[in-house]
Amino acid sequence: MHKLSAATAPQAVLFDAYGTLFDVYSVALVAEQRFPGRGEALALLWRDKQIEYTRLVTMSAPDGSRYRPFWELTRDALRFACARLGQVLDTDAELALMNQYRHLSAFPEVREVLEGLKARGIPAGILSNGDPGMLGIAVRSAGLGPLLDHVISVEPARAFKTDPRAYALGPKTLGLNARQILFVSSNGWDAIGATWFGYTTLWVNRAGLPLDPLGTEPTRTGTSLRDVLGFF
Amino acid sequence: MHKLSAATAPQAVLFDAYGTLFDVYSVALVAEQRFPGRGEALALLWRDKQIEYTRLVTMSAPDGSRYRPFWELTRDALRFACARLGQVLDTDAELALMNQYRHLSAFPEVREVLEGLKARGIPAGILSNGDPGMLGIAVRSAGLGPLLDHVISVEPARAFKTDPRAYALGPKTLGLNARQILFVSSNGWDAIGATWFGYTTLWVNRAGLPLDPLGTEPTRTGTSLRDVLGFF
Repeated sequence: MHKLSAATAPQAVLFDAYGTLFDVYSVALVAEQRFPGRGEALALLWRDKQIEYTRLVTMSAPDGSRYRPFWELTRDALRFACARLGQVLDTDAELALMNQYRHLSAFPEVREVLEGLKARGIPAGILSNGDPGMLGIAVRSAGLGPLLDHVISVEPARAFKTDPRAYALGPKTLGLNARQILFVSSNGWDAIGATWFGYTTLWVNRAGLPLDPLGTEPTRTGTSLRDVLGFF
Repeated sequence: MHKLSAATAPQAVLFDAYGTLFDVYSVALVAEQRFPGRGEALALLWRDKQIEYTRLVTMSAPDGSRYRPFWELTRDALRFACARLGQVLDTDAELALMNQYRHLSAFPEVREVLEGLKARGIPAGILSNGDPGMLGIAVRSAGLGPLLDHVISVEPARAFKTDPRAYALGPKTLGLNARQILFVSSNGWDAIGATWFGYTTLWVNRAGLPLDPLGTEPTRTGTSLRDVLGFF
C-alpha cells in the first residue's frame, strides 16, 4: 500500500455507522436467545431487508416522498424477517431486539482509531443512513461523542445511500470536496457508492468478501478500521 | 375477491418477466450439476446480487450514467456468487449457466393465461429489467412471441425498476394511464413499486411469502398467474 502524496491526502474522515463502527450482527446473540437455533439467520435476513427497504423507498420516489426514518424501516425489516422465518414476534421480543439495535457494540478498535485521528488533528465524523435520534443514542451509548466532530444523518436529504444526495451531505457539512474526505465503510456497496460519488474511500473488508464486480474499486481495501490511520 | 367495476377494469396487462413469466430458479438445476450440493445456494445468491446491482447502479446515478445492461449485471452477479461461495467459475461453467439464464423455462400456466387474455381481447406485454436482446431470446425460446403485443425493456430509461422512469415506459408505450394497466409480478418489491407508481397490480405470491411491510398493498394478491384472468 503506497503512501498518498501530501497534495492528495484526505483532510477529514467520515465513517459509515452500522456495520462499520457498530457491530450490527451483535444482535444475533439476542436473537438467538429469543429464537434458539435461528438467531443468525434472523440477524442476516433482518439486515438484508433493512438495506433493501432503504433502497426501495429511495429509488421509487426521487422526490423523497417514500422516505421513512431508518428506525421505522429497521423495525419493519425485523417484522418481515420473523414472519419469513415463521417466528412469532411478540411486543416484548420486538422491544428487546430493537433496543439491542439501539445499543449496538462498537467494534473493539473504534476508540483507538478515533483517538489516533484526534491526535493527528484530523476531524472525524459519521455519515449514516440512521436517523438523528438513533445515531445520537448509539454514539452516546458507546461513549464516542467526544471523539466525533460530526454526526451526519442522511435524513435531511430524504434519500438513503447510495443516492448521491445522501453522500452530498458530507462535503456540504465539512466544507470540503468529496475527494478531500476519506469515507470509510465495511459495506462493500457503500464503499463503491462513495467512490462513485467522488470520495477517497476505504473498504474495511472484515469478512474477507469478494468485491462486487461493478467496475469500480475503493481507493483502498483493508481488514480493520486501523487501516484508516495509514492514510495520514 | 370482488369483481372490479367496468369503469375501473384494466384495459391491458403488463407482466414482469424474470421470476413471473420465466422461472429464474430453474437455473438451480444446472448450477447443481456444476456445483454439487451448492446449486440452490448459488441460484439464490445469484438472483439476490443481480437485483442488488440493478438497484445500486440506478440509485447511485439519477442521470443514468451508471446503467449497464441486465445481461452484464447478471453475469457479474454470477461471478460474485461463485466467488462468495468459494466455487471456481471457469469459462465453460459461466457460459453454461448464462446460456441457461437466456433460455429459462416459462411457468406452466403462462401460455394458458396469455391465450385467455387474447380470447378476451386484452392486450398483453412484458415490462422487464431485461435488456431487449435477452428478452427477445427468452420470448422466442418459450414460444410466447405470438401471444405478446409488447415486449418493453427498461433500457431506454437507463433505470431499473422500481425507479419511476422504468415503470413509466408502460403507460407511455400503451397509451394508457397506469391505473388502466394491470401490472403483474411475482416479486413482492416489484408489485409494491408498481403500486406506488400508480398501476393496478397483482402480486403472484407463488412462494407464500409475507408482504414486505412498506405501507402499501398490491391491488390483489394471488398464487398463480391464472389470477390475472379474475380481473376481466
